[in-house]
Parts: sequence; C-alpha cells; structure tokens
Amino acid sequence: MKTTTPLTDLEIASRAKMKPIGEVAATAGIPEEALEPYGRFKGKIQVDKLPPAVADGKVVLVTAISPTPAGEGKSTVTVGLADAFSLLGEKTMVALREPSLGPVMGMKGGAAGGGYSQVLPMEDINLHFTGDIHAITTANNALSALIDNHLHQGNELGIDPRRITWKRVLDMNDRALRHVTVGLGGPSGGIPREDGFDITVASEIMAVFCLAKSLDDLKERLARIVIGYTYGKEPVTVRDLGAEGALTLLLKEAFKPNLVQTIGGTPALIHGGPFANIAHGCNSLAATLTAKRLADIVVTEAGFGSDLGAEKFMDIKARQGDFKPDAVVLVATVRALKMHGGVPKTDLSAPDTLAVAEGLPNLAKHIDTIRSFGIEPVVALNRFITDIDEELETVLGYCRENGVRAAVADVWAQGGAGGTDVARLVLEQIGKGNRFAPVYDELDAFEDKVAAIVTKVYGGEGVHFTDRAQKQLADIRKRGWDILPVCMAKTQYSFTDDPSVLGRPEGFKITIRELIPKLGAGFIVCLTGDIMTMPGLPKEPAAMRMDVGREGQAVGLM
Amino acid sequence: MKTTTPLTDLEIASRAKMKPIGEVAATAGIPEEALEPYGRFKGKIQVDKLPPAVADGKVVLVTAISPTPAGEGKSTVTVGLADAFSLLGEKTMVALREPSLGPVMGMKGGAAGGGYSQVLPMEDINLHFTGDIHAITTANNALSALIDNHLHQGNELGIDPRRITWKRVLDMNDRALRHVTVGLGGPSGGIPREDGFDITVASEIMAVFCLAKSLDDLKERLARIVIGYTYGKEPVTVRDLGAEGALTLLLKEAFKPNLVQTIGGTPALIHGGPFANIAHGCNSLAATLTAKRLADIVVTEAGFGSDLGAEKFMDIKARQGDFKPDAVVLVATVRALKMHGGVPKTDLSAPDTLAVAEGLPNLAKHIDTIRSFGIEPVVALNRFITDIDEELETVLGYCRENGVRAAVADVWAQGGAGGTDVARLVLEQIGKGNRFAPVYDELDAFEDKVAAIVTKVYGGEGVHFTDRAQKQLADIRKRGWDILPVCMAKTQYSFTDDPSVLGRPEGFKITIRELIPKLGAGFIVCLTGDIMTMPGLPKEPAAMRMDVGREGQAVGLM
Repeated sequence: MKTTTPLTDLEIASRAKMKPIGEVAATAGIPEEALEPYGRFKGKIQVDKLPPAVADGKVVLVTAISPTPAGEGKSTVTVGLADAFSLLGEKTMVALREPSLGPVMGMKGGAAGGGYSQVLPMEDINLHFTGDIHAITTANNALSALIDNHLHQGNELGIDPRRITWKRVLDMNDRALRHVTVGLGGPSGGIPREDGFDITVASEIMAVFCLAKSLDDLKERLARIVIGYTYGKEPVTVRDLGAEGALTLLLKEAFKPNLVQTIGGTPALIHGGPFANIAHGCNSLAATLTAKRLADIVVTEAGFGSDLGAEKFMDIKARQGDFKPDAVVLVATVRALKMHGGVPKTDLSAPDTLAVAEGLPNLAKHIDTIRSFGIEPVVALNRFITDIDEELETVLGYCRENGVRAAVADVWAQGGAGGTDVARLVLEQIGKGNRFAPVYDELDAFEDKVAAIVTKVYGGEGVHFTDRAQKQLADIRKRGWDILPVCMAKTQYSFTDDPSVLGRPEGFKITIRELIPKLGAGFIVCLTGDIMTMPGLPKEPAAMRMDVGREGQAVGLM
Repeated sequence: MKTTTPLTDLEIASRAKMKPIGEVAATAGIPEEALEPYGRFKGKIQVDKLPPAVADGKVVLVTAISPTPAGEGKSTVTVGLADAFSLLGEKTMVALREPSLGPVMGMKGGAAGGGYSQVLPMEDINLHFTGDIHAITTANNALSALIDNHLHQGNELGIDPRRITWKRVLDMNDRALRHVTVGLGGPSGGIPREDGFDITVASEIMAVFCLAKSLDDLKERLARIVIGYTYGKEPVTVRDLGAEGALTLLLKEAFKPNLVQTIGGTPALIHGGPFANIAHGCNSLAATLTAKRLADIVVTEAGFGSDLGAEKFMDIKARQGDFKPDAVVLVATVRALKMHGGVPKTDLSAPDTLAVAEGLPNLAKHIDTIRSFGIEPVVALNRFITDIDEELETVLGYCRENGVRAAVADVWAQGGAGGTDVARLVLEQIGKGNRFAPVYDELDAFEDKVAAIVTKVYGGEGVHFTDRAQKQLADIRKRGWDILPVCMAKTQYSFTDDPSVLGRPEGFKITIRELIPKLGAGFIVCLTGDIMTMPGLPKEPAAMRMDVGREGQAVGLM
C-alpha cells in the first residue's frame, strides 16, 4: 500500500501533478499542429493533421466477470494496466469511454478510474469534459425538433405520429421523462403524441459517433438512421428529412478524439461512451484507431462483463473497424466472486475462501467465452483491502490448474507499479498470437447469429423469439436488414436474461422480445427482459453532496 | 464598399486571418496564467488570476430603435464600433451575448455580427462555443430531475405538483415541448404532472449566471430561486432542496468569461445570453466588469430596442453591478424607419424618403427614452446597400435639428473604418459626462416602478394590472419581494404591448397580466401579452441548409 490515509479519489486526483497537455501530446507523438488545447490539461486531436502511422498498436481489451454491486474496478485496472505498460517501457495509450453525467449526479459521483489509477483532470472529465456528450444531446434533440416540425408543417412524408421510434435524450438520470406526451396546448404547440427521453448515452447517435471511421462515414450513418414509419408502414430516415448535414455539423468538433493523461502520465484518449446494453459499450473507433497508429500498446475497455461489452467489441466494433484484439484481460475480484458464490452484499468484507471457490464457475465461464473468440485471456485479480491471501490464492490456483495466465493487480493502491505482473503476462500472451474470429458470420441467418451468441458466449441452450419479435424479424428480413450484426440488450448481472441468476447458469434459453433496427449504428438490437434506457435518481442523489470549495475546487465527486 | 463580391458572413469570417488566442490575450493585458485556451482561437479567463485593474473602462451601450423584420444590425454595429475605437487608438474590448443554437438552427443561421464586423471564430461561436449554454441547460434540468425525484421519493417538503413553476429547458427551437406531461408510465415513471420546456436562454439560471458577481454570489442566487409552492402555498427554493452546491459545480467552468476576437483584432468577451423579453437581455456582468478593468472603452449591447434591453441594462444590470453606462449608441436604419413609416417588408429596397421621415417618430421616442436615464444618445445610422443619400440625410438632418449627435456607420462593408465617425462622436459625448440614473428607485411602491417604466421609457399613459396580477402582487408584497426591480416581458416590436403598433404610439396603457418572482435573478417579471419562451421552427429551418464541407468546414451558417 502506498498510503494509509483514506484519501478519496477526488483528493488523490487533485494532489496528482499533471503535465501540460502539450507535453502529453509530445509524449504521444502528436505534433503541435494536430492538438487543440481545451484548458491546460485537455485537448482534442485533429486526426487529419497527424503524421503517417508510426505504429500498429496491439489492442489489449479489458473486460470483467459478471458485475455485482460489489464493484469490479474494471476502469481502474484499465488505467493502472496502461501505466504498468508505460513503466515497463512500452509506448502505451489508453482509450476509454466518456462518463455520462447521469450516473455522476446519481449514484457514482465520478467515473474515471480510482485510487492511484485514474485519468486526469478527473473533475473536468466527470463534468461536461470537452462537451462531446452535450453535442450528441443537441444533435439528437435537433432531429426530434425537426421531426415534430415536419408533422406540424404539413407532414409531407406522411410520418405516422404513433410510429415515431426516435426519442429525445438528456444526459441526466430522470425517471419522470421516461414517458411523456408532447405537442400539447393547442395548434401552436404542434401535433400531440407520445414520446419519451432516454439518457444520451443510449442515443443511436452515440453509437453512430462511436462506430464512424470519418466525418463522411458519420454523415452517411446519420442519414441511414430510421426515425419511424409512415402511415403506410414504410421506414422514414434522417436522409428523407434532409437533416444529416445539420447533425454532422453539430457533431464535427466533438468527433475529434480527446487527449488527457493518467496519474502515471500515460496519454489517454477519452471519447464517446455508448451504453453497453442497448448499444455496444465501447469508446469511439476514432479514438481506438488513433491510439493504434500512435502507440505500440493500446489498452481499452468495454462495458460490463465479457458476455456484453467484450462480445460487442469483438462482433461489432472490431468487425466494423477492421482490426483485431491482440489480448483480453479479464478482471475478477474476490468480493464479486463471493457474491457469485452466494454471499450477500453486506457480508463481503468477512474472509470466506469457500464462497470464493463457489463463485469460480462465473470466472470459468467468462474464460470460456473469451476462448470462444479464439483468444486466451489473462486474468487480473483486482485486489481490495479486505482480501486475504488465501482467498487470492484460491483464484490464482484455479487459473494455474486451468492453464490461464493470472496475477494480482494492486493498481488502486499502487498505480502502475501494482499492475506490472499482469502487464508482463499480457506481453507474453501477445507474443503467442491468437486465432481471433467473431462468433458468427454476418451472412449467417439472423436466428443463427443470435443462437451463436447465446450458446457460445452465454453458455445457454437456445433462443426463443416472441411472436412480436418473429413478426419484426420477418419485416427486417423483407427489407434486407438481417445482414447486420446483432446487438444484444441483456441484463449485465447474469449470463441469462434474469438478473438474479448469478454464477454459471446452464441449460437456459434467452427470450428475444423485441427487435430494434439501428441502421445508422449498423446493428439490430435484440431486447431481452426490461432494459432501462433512462435511469432514475436514488433517494439520496450524489448531487446532494456536491459543491464548490473556497478555492473554486470541486467537492463531492467521489 | 470594400468588395463587390457578395460574400456571405460565413465566407468573410472564414477568410479572415485570426491571431492565436494567446496573442489576443496579450493585447488585452491578460497574462498567460489567467488564460485557458479552448482550441486555438477561443479561451476562458480565470478572473482571479488577473492582475489588479489597470483601467476603469468607459461603458458604451449599443441599443436600437424598435426592431422590425428588416433587421437593424445592432450586433454588427457593436462589433464595428469596437474596431473603430481600436483604429482610433483606444484600448478597447467588446462584450457580447452568446448566441443560442435555437435561432441559429431555426431562422438566423448565425449570430455574431455580420459582414466585416464579426466576432471570430464565427463558426464555433454559433455552434456550442465553449459549452456555457449546455452547462446552463444541464444545471436547469438537473434541478428539474431533483424536483421530480423529490416528489417520487416521498415529497418530504410537500411540494404541490400542480404548483411547480420550474420548467425544463433545451437550447432548441421546439414548439412540441412547450406543453408536455411528464411522469407517465406507472409508478416507476414518477409522479405525473404538467410541465413544459423553455429555450435555455429563458431559464432563470441564465439570468442568474449573467448577474452574479462571483461564484459565491452565483451559489447564493441559485439557492434563492423559487421552484414552486407547497400544498400550503409556501414557496419552495433551491436551498430547501439542497441543490445549490451541485448546480454551482455544474456552472463553475462556464462562469469564466470567454475571450475571442473581432475581424479587426479587438479582444471580445462573449459570455451569457439571456432573452431580452422574459429576462434582462445583456451579456454577463462578469464579462462586462472584466472588460472594464482591462480596457479604456468597453462596447456592449443589450437585446431588442431601448425600451427593452437598454431599460433593463440601466435599471437592472447597472444597478446590480454597481457601475454606470458612460454613453449610449442608438442604432437606426433607413429600412427599419421605412417600416415604422408604414412601408411593407417587401417594398423596403425602393427609395422612399417620405416614408423614412414618417418613421422618424420611433427614433425620436428612443432618443427621449435614453434621455430619461440622464444620457444623451449618439445615433448610428447603419448603412445598407439599398440606402440612398437623400434617405440617410433625412435622418441625419433630423438629428442635427434636435441636437443629437449622429453619423452613418458603414461597418458591414468596411469594418471598423466604417465606424470611426460614430466612434468620434461617442468619445465627444463621453467627454461631456452624463447624469445617469435609473428611472425608478428600488424602494418605490411596485406599481410606481412599473408606471415609471411605462410612462418614461415607453411613453405610455399608465398601467393596468389584471385581477390575477393584483392577487399575485398582494402575495409578493406580503413576502417582501416587492423591493426587487421590475423585469418587463413585453413585445419588442412596439412600445405598447401590441406588436402591430409601430412608430411612436401615445396615450396607451400597458396591461400586466401576470407577475413571476425570479428571486435568484433578483427581479419580478411582469408579463404583458403573450411572451414566447420556447420558439418554434419555421417551415424551412436554417438547419436544412447546414452541412460540413469537404475540408471539414461549416456550410450554411449565414
């Protein structure tokens, strides 16, 4: 342990010494003319002003076992691991998602790693940052305003107000906006209809933003977005409305990747942040590809466990981005394994080696899942203060017996120095190469694609499509949209579609209750169970603890 | 005319050569440690890192005759006049409002001056800029989410959902959001109630932001905002909800004034932009006071005509900010005077000296209005290509006869060089001093304060309070809120409360139909007629012409 004082993440972050952003850029090989500073410690990168690629960085994806309320510290490990690679002399960059303000104001109070493995300036990253998410909110809602204006001004396209699928968004946890009626108040208020607000990170524009390869690609994807259907049940796109130019203009500055630094001084790109349930849960392709051309090692993460974020990283992001992951780090914690072993949340601090052992099947299934993509994972056992050696050894021993490289990561307390054991194992694994392949082919029948995910990735037995989903699938097939990849919207807490089933369930089926074509993002969302696209605030929101201190500093970001 | 090619504002702006923002800061006397760059040509100023004041700048307020659809070019004159002072060797800064995206996407396509009198980078200023308005949107809607969450979590304060006056906002023209119902969809969606969205520039947080003297003052003002009433009809404030800390945290970076430059290279502060009808219509006090301590001449503008923006500048902003305006420039155009003289919008390009003469009473009343504040105005006759000499001379001759300094401003075509005649007259006028005083005393009876505005500023005969307004006034008086200044919400097109009455109406009364206490902003809004707080989009929104060009440049901002 580096320190015995119980500093908060915000205190650690504000005591850390930051390099000016120009220096960070220089370390990363970004010339001055390609850097647009945003304050002293943030910048945007003009990718078209970068020199030709000096590297073809190895992509290290960080994923995790099934998340529990105990917390896995995946972002913390991602940041610490990047600093560990830097310490080992590797030219490294880390690529992360931008935090949404909704959870920051709601539950978490901050999301940029933790302890001595954070990205800086933590306070700015958590609050508005360079405004990218606000630009996405604006583009999303400009489209909504144009749709409602189209209805009001005569509805030339014959859009059926009952079949508008495009929702408004705010970067906020606000349950009262989930279901609303708009257009009230008489003729001057437009056409009344049902609508709803999602959180911005659930917007298709966020997914589009994170999968576009260039501004041209961004515009083309925006044009393809389906916003609803006509009275004749034909799809209406952004192109039909003629709005793709304005939306691209609203997004063009945001589309430049953001450069910051870790506490250890590793250059970090933080850009885009789609939900990992309704969307694909990875930072922007623009950031990942930029990092690949600048650094030898690119550490990045995907949302939730390997069944969600990592599956989508492999089957959607890597496929659309035409690159392959070189290594996968699977984060596990003793605390989370105890929960998978049946221990209630309140008792996680008490040593319980048996429960850890009983939770191991969850880890085992995640190892198998990653192997189903042709990659051997490296397990990073993220240490918590309450862990005892016997518990840690139970996990490491299991990995040894099963031929999986594994080491303890003590990055929260030690920063990069606590991650070098894992980093060395990752370098070994990269040296061995892999036989990466997505778990399905895009040309497979749609049901077969879903089945491949359920059986190989989740370990289930099969798929059930509800009558509604079957009807939707017939329509999707008729329009030729079934050649798109699948984006599963499933609970993150279980391999099944029931969040209460922990551990390693077997013999289950997944029910697909609805299909949502996202033609801009380029995937078909399969909804299983109730997926929340607009969170609510808890009884005591994190916002209640927030303030500005006497010297203008942030207070209450955790 | 500098050029005969009909370049658009965007073309002129993109051909202009900008100085790096560090150079602009140096010109303005802002040391490097007080400048936070935002890209290469924008910056935020850390006011607490500025050296002690080197100046006590003279404040030149630019206002206008009653606006017409013909356009008066008040921002263009403001910018051109600032460049003219710079050309005359005066150390000058200009302070302006930030453009709202709503009108940019709707009607105007851009709002940062015009021709060769623009602020740069025009494209960024019109699109997101440094994110201030997004921060205000976020703070406003975070408060809404906290209110609805309070209702949902047990409503300890006993807030009556029917009496919540705090509305949500978006920086968008979106008529379908004027009247909405929220909280639908069953218990998980919160408590159903009526709500509505205003455009962000109409939010009380925007007014608070623009009147606060410091971060502490900002927080104290936010705490005072009344969000609605309990079942017992007692006011509920942000302080009661405990949200002022979080809201201040969300606003603290935005609160730093933004530095940019004019085409002529004059340093410009663009910061805050409240509506001039529902609020006070001036850029932030923080920006004005910052400019005053750095420059000898501070040129600034207030929204709409002298009856709206200028009245509020004098009676609200200058009073709360404890400074006085040193000169007032009154912008008039031949085209607008023709409309006041009865010519329809379609015929304004045809010469019509008689109509100009018939429109002069409108100018005359604005001259009287400014004199009612103890200041002699200088008239700037903003030249348009279609104006003929005889028309211009009609206006100048009238001014001469009435002892008013007046000159033609040809700043659209010539930049600062076209504004030096006006600038010289302003310097003369400043040399003479003035006897500035607000038109009412805060301690006057509330009705007398309103009457002073109506009779002295509008030239009307008296005020009628509806029964509803009288009841509200009784309540306001009971709570002691009647000592606050008045913020009139009136049509900008007429001195009366009827937008169709142009020229110089006489013998009219103003009807006050509703009073809205804005305790954070520190004024009581008096609503007269229908005041639009959420605009709609036209049949062909400006957004339809917007795009990104081949080299990533903006297309379609006018």
